[in-house]
Amino acid sequence: MARPGGRSARVQEAVHTAVRELADEVGRDALTVPLIAARAEVTPSTVYRRWGDLQALLSDVAVERLRPEAPPEDLGDLGSDLRAWAEQFLDEMGSPAGRAYIRDALLGDPDGSNAGQCSAYAAEQVGVVLARAADRGETAPDVETVLDHVVAPMMYRILFRPSGHDAAYARRLVAEVLDAQV
Amino acid sequence: MARPGGRSARVQEAVHTAVRELADEVGRDALTVPLIAARAEVTPSTVYRRWGDLQALLSDVAVERLRPEAPPEDLGDLGSDLRAWAEQFLDEMGSPAGRAYIRDALLGDPDGSNAGQCSAYAAEQVGVVLARAADRGETAPDVETVLDHVVAPMMYRILFRPSGHDAAYARRLVAEVLDAQV
Repeated sequence: MARPGGRSARVQEAVHTAVRELADEVGRDALTVPLIAARAEVTPSTVYRRWGDLQALLSDVAVERLRPEAPPEDLGDLGSDLRAWAEQFLDEMGSPAGRAYIRDALLGDPDGSNAGQCSAYAAEQVGVVLARAADRGETAPDVETVLDHVVAPMMYRILFRPSGHDAAYARRLVAEVLDAQV
Repeated sequence: MARPGGRSARVQEAVHTAVRELADEVGRDALTVPLIAARAEVTPSTVYRRWGDLQALLSDVAVERLRPEAPPEDLGDLGSDLRAWAEQFLDEMGSPAGRAYIRDALLGDPDGSNAGQCSAYAAEQVGVVLARAADRGETAPDVETVLDHVVAPMMYRILFRPSGHDAAYARRLVAEVLDAQV
């Protein structure tokens, strides 16, 4: 394992930053390992040694970008919290940038660990919402139920049926999973 | 539009066959357009002109392989039919070959039409099962409900949580969606 703050962490930070900057400047499809290495001021072989290939590097960068920046907002009750979180998730993941990151995360990920990390982020955010509900004494579904019946249908539409999702869809999935609790 | 049976259809057939054969012989990661073109007895530029790049070609081949070969089996009642279909879907799509095809179908698919086709195949098969149930006078959920609460959770696990699915999981999702109808 690399020591945090050591050379390994600095290389990762520089390379990830180079990918993000260059993707904005020249577009994702024009990225190459030599281009990224030059911007990050490392050798191409450093990149190949650490990430294997461009796709694996893009997958790691995508997962970093999909990491939630803050816990879900506390709006005072389970329905409001879960609705707001689901609407925001669908909006962000269903945007062109979100879809590109999800695709990158799924590719270049032979052992499935980056895809698993994406799901773990969602589970963690949902877990915060449900734990708050439990603290308030509200009846709440468990995390797995919300993953299966709210997160999964949204992600399925994002990936397989890009035109079929909007905030009303997210709200309906949340209403159904909460109704099923009663 | 290409006339069925014309040169265009023959080229497609030859190129798809070449991809399938070579994937078995040398492995998917060793495929190149020149290799495929040579086996299909067409020029590389024919392949580039028609498909754009290797990833787009692999996406088309993957969708062909994901096309269901037969309608779901008729076992006499909705519960049995939907359970059997869901178990088989999870088994096939969750296999290493199935996951590779789904990933290929999702990539090299800039307009989302191949991903949409994958979802349309599932919707069609589910539609057959539900129409049979209606003919028998059984109460059945609609296709969208089954896509959201049976197909989507299975696909989410296949893509994002590769270790968390088995036949019991498929049966539980079907039982829940049918219970919710009562």
